[in-house]
Amino acid sequence: MALLPEPLEKLILALERLPGIGSKTASRLAFFLWRSPAEVSSDLAEALRDIKTSTVLCAECFNITLAGREKCEICASSNRDSSLVCVVEEPLDVLALERTAGFNGKYHVLHGALSPIEGITPDDLRIRELVERVEKGEIREIIVATNPSMEGDATALYLRQRLDQFNLRITRLARGLPMGGDLEYADQNTLLRALSGRQEL
Amino acid sequence: MALLPEPLEKLILALERLPGIGSKTASRLAFFLWRSPAEVSSDLAEALRDIKTSTVLCAECFNITLAGREKCEICASSNRDSSLVCVVEEPLDVLALERTAGFNGKYHVLHGALSPIEGITPDDLRIRELVERVEKGEIREIIVATNPSMEGDATALYLRQRLDQFNLRITRLARGLPMGGDLEYADQNTLLRALSGRQEL
Repeated sequence: MALLPEPLEKLILALERLPGIGSKTASRLAFFLWRSPAEVSSDLAEALRDIKTSTVLCAECFNITLAGREKCEICASSNRDSSLVCVVEEPLDVLALERTAGFNGKYHVLHGALSPIEGITPDDLRIRELVERVEKGEIREIIVATNPSMEGDATALYLRQRLDQFNLRITRLARGLPMGGDLEYADQNTLLRALSGRQEL
Repeated sequence: MALLPEPLEKLILALERLPGIGSKTASRLAFFLWRSPAEVSSDLAEALRDIKTSTVLCAECFNITLAGREKCEICASSNRDSSLVCVVEEPLDVLALERTAGFNGKYHVLHGALSPIEGITPDDLRIRELVERVEKGEIREIIVATNPSMEGDATALYLRQRLDQFNLRITRLARGLPMGGDLEYADQNTLLRALSGRQEL
């Protein structure tokens, strides 16, 4: 005997495919949606349809942008410094950096990081496109803002090798203690980086 | 400047309405869906449409069932004991009890619990319908399986008062230590209930 009517079962299965959502959370969400006013689920269904049809990648930085545009708002803006490019792994990283309001250059989204284990090679990332942007000669500095992980570090090193031939400043984000962190609980590597990167007070 | 293209922004807002999903999780889910093959989001969108249009409440127990049926599979089954009815708050509770495979009676879903704070009165729950089922005279025992919370307990007490006039056994689920639990970490109330409800070894 099926424990649940098929439409609910299907919704639970569809929700379970999302990252971080297990079967219990999926059931809870499905029942919440079933109980909520119809527009809660119809708004969600509509938004789901739209993301696939009405977004494209910016032809310059490969961030997500509205379909029909060639460049994203940041690349098209004349207020941003085109000589400074920040290289990130994912579109969400652009969002995080924009929220700081501390960066006025442009971006380049790689869409991933090098990972031999997962079989992700330089050809799977937007590295060729970054080299092409650099070859145009307008860029003076590249800030490598890949994640502070094995894959992010490997990608950063690879980028430095690929871009070494150009007359370019290549920097990366500082490592050290996070704000609000506790020295006592910092891991060895972070503390080591914080020591070696110490600054004048 | 909008940080995100509108379709993504809309999807994030729609996901944030779900319980337990904050803005960071919503962004992460939205980008996951954007990156995934089209069928991941289209399956979800389709399932969302279906739950509203193709489910109804069982006319007898008020559990969720497929549209077009009058009774749910459990109520329609001749293998279930109609004289034993388990009263629960939500359809998910039916699922939990069915998974134990230890109950062969029928159910009654109240769709909530009494809560003066949230303004939920007996009229908001399927209590009148339960009394009507009892009045038919077929039921010999009612197992009250509301949650072990303030609201669940209040609902259980109210049900006992309402059903006292009938020649009926009214029971409730046992309270005590949960399996795999640790005596040391059990809260006072649970331990008190475990003591007072102690059983012969």
